[in-house]
Amino acid sequence: MMQGQPEPDWIGVDWGTTHLRAWAMTADGVELAGADSGMGMASLTRDGFEPALLDLIDPWLSGAPMTVIACGMVGSRQGWVEAPYSAVPCPAIAAAMVAAPITDPRLEVHVIPGIKQLDPPDVMRGEETQIAGFLHLDPGYNGILCLPGTHTKWVRISDGQVSAFRTAMTGEVFACLSQHSVLRHTVAPDGRDGGWDDDAFAEALNDTLSRPEHLATRLFALRADHLLNGTPPGISTARLSGLLIGIELAASRGYWLGQNVTLIGATRLARIYAQALAAQGVPAILADDSAVTQTGLFTAYQALKEPVT
Amino acid sequence: MMQGQPEPDWIGVDWGTTHLRAWAMTADGVELAGADSGMGMASLTRDGFEPALLDLIDPWLSGAPMTVIACGMVGSRQGWVEAPYSAVPCPAIAAAMVAAPITDPRLEVHVIPGIKQLDPPDVMRGEETQIAGFLHLDPGYNGILCLPGTHTKWVRISDGQVSAFRTAMTGEVFACLSQHSVLRHTVAPDGRDGGWDDDAFAEALNDTLSRPEHLATRLFALRADHLLNGTPPGISTARLSGLLIGIELAASRGYWLGQNVTLIGATRLARIYAQALAAQGVPAILADDSAVTQTGLFTAYQALKEPVT
Repeated sequence: MMQGQPEPDWIGVDWGTTHLRAWAMTADGVELAGADSGMGMASLTRDGFEPALLDLIDPWLSGAPMTVIACGMVGSRQGWVEAPYSAVPCPAIAAAMVAAPITDPRLEVHVIPGIKQLDPPDVMRGEETQIAGFLHLDPGYNGILCLPGTHTKWVRISDGQVSAFRTAMTGEVFACLSQHSVLRHTVAPDGRDGGWDDDAFAEALNDTLSRPEHLATRLFALRADHLLNGTPPGISTARLSGLLIGIELAASRGYWLGQNVTLIGATRLARIYAQALAAQGVPAILADDSAVTQTGLFTAYQALKEPVT
Repeated sequence: MMQGQPEPDWIGVDWGTTHLRAWAMTADGVELAGADSGMGMASLTRDGFEPALLDLIDPWLSGAPMTVIACGMVGSRQGWVEAPYSAVPCPAIAAAMVAAPITDPRLEVHVIPGIKQLDPPDVMRGEETQIAGFLHLDPGYNGILCLPGTHTKWVRISDGQVSAFRTAMTGEVFACLSQHSVLRHTVAPDGRDGGWDDDAFAEALNDTLSRPEHLATRLFALRADHLLNGTPPGISTARLSGLLIGIELAASRGYWLGQNVTLIGATRLARIYAQALAAQGVPAILADDSAVTQTGLFTAYQALKEPVT
């Protein structure tokens, strides 16, 4: 640790496909310091995980073994160690954590299991920790949690358990089409040449929410509209996002119509979902995703230190 | 030309985004020789078109200026010379061709204009030549032409004219998701690890044809089904194709339900579309796409040599 800072009692890690985030934490679950890197699962072989973690947290280690609690794709088959899925219905963190193979005696790493659903087939890794954190803060919650992102999760919470969930890979489809299809000449996901257009987003969203099949022909129409009418990239980008979130809302109607919905996620994306749901008469609450991730890791740390007898 | 072969009267060129194909032709529209390269529009700057063409057709040139008729993205704003779109309703090749800037005195290059539709916005370049070729062979055709491909076109033909059309970028979405999303671990578009599964294709197609919104959640389910049940790549690939063609058919219902449909395209993809339409009770006819492209270029050559007075 930096001089003058207290030493952490444990370290929490959120280790996804493309990112690695770590926090030095007190025994009470207070963050002392944070660090992150681009060393996600996708860029590592199995024996690369320990060095990648040490690169980030070495300054926080002393001689005694440090407890590290990790969630996310680090526990997948292609990760550091496979932490088998729990099956719904189940608590957010249902099974014991799995220890990762370690060479450095200063480390002790525990990986949180993901959750699976057999029918329809679905999986999550990382989101279960956010759900556990949210339910720790609001234990009586009944309703829907929506976690927007690369793979947006819609999760039904009943009696403190995860009872069902669905994934829409809306964020990834948006990224694929923006970067690798002919639409890369038409949209500007980075915001160049003009900003996001709320009306264009809302109109496109209503289009595929009421007529989801329109997605098939509206995609190329974005390109044609740009060629023929010079439509600015900001408008095309908002339309592409609206078309994709519209069909997602059409598919997940059972998860939001007449339901309590709480959105957990990065602020801008969560606001876009909130705006879309509000337009359907569903007032969604926003919850900070970093806070619920840390709290979820903290509940797993507590369970490890004080196992239920 | 190779020794002993007759000299061509003109050269036809199909110049798309990723490919360049050329044919040495007689005055009667008979192919003498063919050549192709990967020098598509996307890999060329404006002054690269003439050398790329000469690389391919130099053996066919003599001293006298050779007439070259070209169609496709070569006529786009990013192409060799912009050939402005004709607007529907119009004949397949409605406007005069545009001459490309040339330095080699042995060449004379004419580019066929594409077609645009203002509402809903849509464009085509290259397909208009195939349509012209088809209508030259079957002048009385009334009905629908479907040209499956990277950007599948559904085209309404009335009284010998193109009256309306829609584009679904189904092939490009399939390629994007197969190569650049998490589904690249799940599908095998190249056929590795087991073949195409007709039943899986038909089931997925019916799913999104009747409930197009299912596309939003069925994509990630392909991945989850692979992780949880070890579903083979051949089945997942057929399902991905079925989901995407299903929503395309849902969007283009007005173009095939109760219509005469002729499919123009590469054999395997056209057969997949034919199979899908047959399952909806629509018996589509298959037309060879190379033949209609050559015939379309031939009609443009004839019009140049014997302009209507």
